[in-house]
Amino acid sequence: MAGSTFGKQFTITTWGESHGEAIGAVVDGCPAGLPLQEEDIQVYLDRRKPGSSPFSTPRKESDRVRILSGVFEGKTTGTPISLLIPNTSQRSADYSEIACYYRPGHADYTFDAKYGFRDYRGGGRSSGRETAGRVAGGAIAAKFLNELGIRVQAYTKSIGPVSIDPSRFDASAILSTPTAMPDREADSHAQEWLKACMQEKDSSGGVVECVISGLPAGVGEPVFLKLDACLAAALFSIGAVKAVEIGDGTGVSTAKGSENNDPFRIQDGRIVKASNHAGGILGGISDGADIVMRAHIKPTPSIFRPQQTVNVHGQEQTVSIRGRHDPVIVPRAVVVVECMAALTIADLLLANMGARMDGVRRFYGK
Amino acid sequence: MAGSTFGKQFTITTWGESHGEAIGAVVDGCPAGLPLQEEDIQVYLDRRKPGSSPFSTPRKESDRVRILSGVFEGKTTGTPISLLIPNTSQRSADYSEIACYYRPGHADYTFDAKYGFRDYRGGGRSSGRETAGRVAGGAIAAKFLNELGIRVQAYTKSIGPVSIDPSRFDASAILSTPTAMPDREADSHAQEWLKACMQEKDSSGGVVECVISGLPAGVGEPVFLKLDACLAAALFSIGAVKAVEIGDGTGVSTAKGSENNDPFRIQDGRIVKASNHAGGILGGISDGADIVMRAHIKPTPSIFRPQQTVNVHGQEQTVSIRGRHDPVIVPRAVVVVECMAALTIADLLLANMGARMDGVRRFYGK
Amino acid sequence: MAGSTFGKQFTITTWGESHGEAIGAVVDGCPAGLPLQEEDIQVYLDRRKPGSSPFSTPRKESDRVRILSGVFEGKTTGTPISLLIPNTSQRSADYSEIACYYRPGHADYTFDAKYGFRDYRGGGRSSGRETAGRVAGGAIAAKFLNELGIRVQAYTKSIGPVSIDPSRFDASAILSTPTAMPDREADSHAQEWLKACMQEKDSSGGVVECVISGLPAGVGEPVFLKLDACLAAALFSIGAVKAVEIGDGTGVSTAKGSENNDPFRIQDGRIVKASNHAGGILGGISDGADIVMRAHIKPTPSIFRPQQTVNVHGQEQTVSIRGRHDPVIVPRAVVVVECMAALTIADLLLANMGARMDGVRRFYGK
Amino acid sequence: MAGSTFGKQFTITTWGESHGEAIGAVVDGCPAGLPLQEEDIQVYLDRRKPGSSPFSTPRKESDRVRILSGVFEGKTTGTPISLLIPNTSQRSADYSEIACYYRPGHADYTFDAKYGFRDYRGGGRSSGRETAGRVAGGAIAAKFLNELGIRVQAYTKSIGPVSIDPSRFDASAILSTPTAMPDREADSHAQEWLKACMQEKDSSGGVVECVISGLPAGVGEPVFLKLDACLAAALFSIGAVKAVEIGDGTGVSTAKGSENNDPFRIQDGRIVKASNHAGGILGGISDGADIVMRAHIKPTPSIFRPQQTVNVHGQEQTVSIRGRHDPVIVPRAVVVVECMAALTIADLLLANMGARMDGVRRFYGK
Repeated sequence: MAGSTFGKQFTITTWGESHGEAIGAVVDGCPAGLPLQEEDIQVYLDRRKPGSSPFSTPRKESDRVRILSGVFEGKTTGTPISLLIPNTSQRSADYSEIACYYRPGHADYTFDAKYGFRDYRGGGRSSGRETAGRVAGGAIAAKFLNELGIRVQAYTKSIGPVSIDPSRFDASAILSTPTAMPDREADSHAQEWLKACMQEKDSSGGVVECVISGLPAGVGEPVFLKLDACLAAALFSIGAVKAVEIGDGTGVSTAKGSENNDPFRIQDGRIVKASNHAGGILGGISDGADIVMRAHIKPTPSIFRPQQTVNVHGQEQTVSIRGRHDPVIVPRAVVVVECMAALTIADLLLANMGARMDGVRRFYGK
Repeated sequence: MAGSTFGKQFTITTWGESHGEAIGAVVDGCPAGLPLQEEDIQVYLDRRKPGSSPFSTPRKESDRVRILSGVFEGKTTGTPISLLIPNTSQRSADYSEIACYYRPGHADYTFDAKYGFRDYRGGGRSSGRETAGRVAGGAIAAKFLNELGIRVQAYTKSIGPVSIDPSRFDASAILSTPTAMPDREADSHAQEWLKACMQEKDSSGGVVECVISGLPAGVGEPVFLKLDACLAAALFSIGAVKAVEIGDGTGVSTAKGSENNDPFRIQDGRIVKASNHAGGILGGISDGADIVMRAHIKPTPSIFRPQQTVNVHGQEQTVSIRGRHDPVIVPRAVVVVECMAALTIADLLLANMGARMDGVRRFYGK
Repeated sequence: MAGSTFGKQFTITTWGESHGEAIGAVVDGCPAGLPLQEEDIQVYLDRRKPGSSPFSTPRKESDRVRILSGVFEGKTTGTPISLLIPNTSQRSADYSEIACYYRPGHADYTFDAKYGFRDYRGGGRSSGRETAGRVAGGAIAAKFLNELGIRVQAYTKSIGPVSIDPSRFDASAILSTPTAMPDREADSHAQEWLKACMQEKDSSGGVVECVISGLPAGVGEPVFLKLDACLAAALFSIGAVKAVEIGDGTGVSTAKGSENNDPFRIQDGRIVKASNHAGGILGGISDGADIVMRAHIKPTPSIFRPQQTVNVHGQEQTVSIRGRHDPVIVPRAVVVVECMAALTIADLLLANMGARMDGVRRFYGK
Repeated sequence: MAGSTFGKQFTITTWGESHGEAIGAVVDGCPAGLPLQEEDIQVYLDRRKPGSSPFSTPRKESDRVRILSGVFEGKTTGTPISLLIPNTSQRSADYSEIACYYRPGHADYTFDAKYGFRDYRGGGRSSGRETAGRVAGGAIAAKFLNELGIRVQAYTKSIGPVSIDPSRFDASAILSTPTAMPDREADSHAQEWLKACMQEKDSSGGVVECVISGLPAGVGEPVFLKLDACLAAALFSIGAVKAVEIGDGTGVSTAKGSENNDPFRIQDGRIVKASNHAGGILGGISDGADIVMRAHIKPTPSIFRPQQTVNVHGQEQTVSIRGRHDPVIVPRAVVVVECMAALTIADLLLANMGARMDGVRRFYGK
């Protein structure tokens, strides 16, 4: 069944395989009149682009995006925005071998089980490369949100045992460190950890944290399109995410109510919360505080050690994966998390416009 | 915007408020010919019913379900199944006071922010009582899955600091202990913990674990309706859930690839995994192993201690919540988790039927 | 697959069979703050109610609606509105015979082909009685539209060979004539025609016309949720509708461009069209003129003459239908057309709120 | 709101404007394992291509389609199929003038009313050129249906006053006559009619008929995704369609029940209907007979006579449209109707697979 479209009002449909001719996305439902040019998107793609650090695959992809529709005279027209990113570095030869066996931790086996066969080149549709389309579309959502004073910012919170120290938080480091950590000291430790992993032909997991600020209270549609439910679906749709936390997250299970409740108070004439254990969401609706969430990302399944697996003929065998693979997924996943969050918020922000009669009346001048 | 429908093929639409005349659900898309009677549903509702333990609200609700449509001569007809559960114990007097202020940790404030006003009686639509409709509908999904050899089983994994010991796992205890723990010793410790919380006028969080067994490989629709994305949305749509884990969950962020990958092997002529760190999902598609997930549930926000908050007039005030409230949400959430999981699986199981030509051809005899 | 929900923002889900315990609907996505009481809905249901004229079935149904949720202190709360209409006159005995054969022109055969068996009592889900739920929900949509100055009005345009004369158009007659014709003279002729049909144990088709006035330009979502596409789906979802026309409808196929184009002009400082061949829709978007459409409705398939058919055992047989049946569907379908149109417009009106940045910015105060 | 996706299981999302860089579509949900190459699609696009007859615009477009994803080793993989058709003949100069005024019968005004501005080049998104994407996607749906023995065939039934004579029906003529009429004599008369229209600087409407054969009984999802409702939405989503008929269509409104009912009978051991007034649909579900429907298409609004209109500054003016325009839309719409019908059927055919327990059990081997 069709599963490649996300959202209801502000939607993205992604397409493309790792080693096809191109990869892309169609964004539909973006309001007309948003200033948009390819460069707005390119800066997001450049953050995801491989080959920019010792910890990302040396595959060279320029990842230049083209806008094929939906923009006229520098502004969105309200019609679908088609985004195309040519694949330029498809070294299929590297992958021919994996046609025959199922890589542990990858989707080779499940794609075969579901579809009967698979495009095995570079993981095909289940490759991390699919997220390039999401980033291209998410950049548009982020631009839309920025116009409304809403900012989505993700960063690496931890890699393996190395976590950032909030007291050293330095936003400028996110875009300049190889780990996308907002803490240069942690970044340095994490790099050492990753080098050790690589030496052991192994890989590492980590955590991406994402903060959405400037979101007005009221966003989210109970009871199934709650803000947290939609954000969780967005994050879990990213390959490698195995846990999602909102606010205090797993911490709530050992907390008491008196610790977990956020008291309300008045600040500058507005209702605010004195703390934010809830992560900005109450009853599935934004409460005006920052949305805070975390995605736990598994270690790259492609490791260079020999592994036990089975082949497509149903025989057990030992495999040694070759090719180009990052020792950690986290740093490049940061912008993907950000973009999926932006797409979710854009969608629910439009949905919320019809929540009450006074808003509808005002909109239509009645 | 309409947010009260879940699923695409096998759907549930819930309706009703805590203190309205009734609460209910419409299940649409259930295949015709499934044997179904009210008793099949009632056993699920009885697990969620209040008043059955010292740790659940003393509110008395018989929670008797009536099937109003979609079943004929003991079988589903393929048309919508309307489920009605009358509310019999609406002591609105208890709640009149909360009309005026925003309870910390509740959705009072966000509902007002979104909709302009709210049904304040017992939390209205944001009450845990809304989940009675989900359980009624989920019971049908579970029955459907059982017919196909698929079993969904949830239980309490921990309450506050007390966790079950897997080596003492006793499935029979789930339905007979007040905590829904599959470990009578842990249950006993958890009861003590809860009594202490109640004495302190406080409440406790906990963890629900859910296991789905018998699910064939191939279920889940990449890239946005992945099995894990849909399950996470289902669980996060339950009020009080603040984190969801699949398989090793948060553990993956500190794991190495060599630890996290599950080797494939052959067992009885079938491809299986030697371990299940992935929790039964690879690339968003079921891999034939048990689906394992956990929902972290926050402590009941209604505590009997004085709390700081603001009222609807924008003034700060201290409140002391009264009424009937569970000191822990977890035990009654177990069946809700189970039912949301069953609804998700039923939906994706039908979606999967069109995945490949040979299946479609066989179905239509071509 | 789930097919009983209509719309995306402002939705209706109907449930119920002709001879079940009750019939109903859930309206989800109605903005909060709309004044609503059962009486607002009842006046619509009374227009559909059987037994009010010599041309409608003598089945007696009080069709009293109850609002079970989503309304608090006389206003909608933004949460799902559950509507219940008890069935009070299920004389199943009349229908037991039809369990065994397939009535020509009915859905007996196709329901069996699709679902394997059917609720044969009174046509089950395919009965015209299902539309009671639509009318109940549509009444809410109509109320919503009225608040915005939008009015939906349907009436009988023709029955068999008898058409209304636009020069005698009398809106007051719609609710007071047995045929729902806005022309008392045509009504009188049509009554004679229907009496003749009944004498011949036959039935008659006819046309319902529907006019939507006060709709602002801009409503409709190209290219697949165009206003005309959504209205056509709404009308064709009503059993017995076999053709839908917008504006000049079938007349356009023999028209020339010079005749069919509507010139624009300025009137009172606003852009209007000098004619309305287009029926108020250009490019799938409302153009500010009245929306005009027609549904062609087939004659009641239940006729009292002997007919050739087959039975469930695959044998040919002659059948003579008994029971209570209208000799014409049209008059009672008028309010159903009106309600489906109102639901469609309400849905697209909300969808349109996110069409452009200036509107979104203004809504969110940015 | 996003309106450019059609279908739920087997979906198409179209994008692109008349004078953008390219036009295209993404087909998602097509079962894996369908043999597919660009040539399969090209033959459909060639039927829609301009410049192939004296009655179609002389704009030269090679309309070469490229498949960018979703196909591997000659077969669909179950992942989204991205289709790209470069625009090669964008003579924007022709259209610069229309930026300033609203062409009668076009969507210029409504796009401005909705979106605040528009891509005025060649009609932008509301251009007939948008249908190239639909045809590309519909060709895949048609291929899918062919594999299951289902055939969709459309043709011109009439142009202006000239109708085909069913007794002269010649399927081979559909692809070889400039009018796409299956009757060479009618084609000849229609050509004369069109030449006369062109001489008068005018245009003509007409009717497309579409027949779907080989469709099993049971397809269509009551009560809102009925087969006829979905087909009508599909056809009305095509610009210029102003009426849709199923089976006897508008004829039913003057028919009697005894004339309109189709008796069932047994033929070769199977249940069939002795006539097909219903057009193959009863209760919104296919009945095993041919689906027969007609779309009434308005005359090309671009005529070369002076017309009254208003400009974007709110002033009345006379305009004379220039550029390249067909004097009749019908012949090129034939393949578009066929493709939208194929997409609808493919979608509902997959949806139907979950209709009953025995089918689901058999599918999953339980």
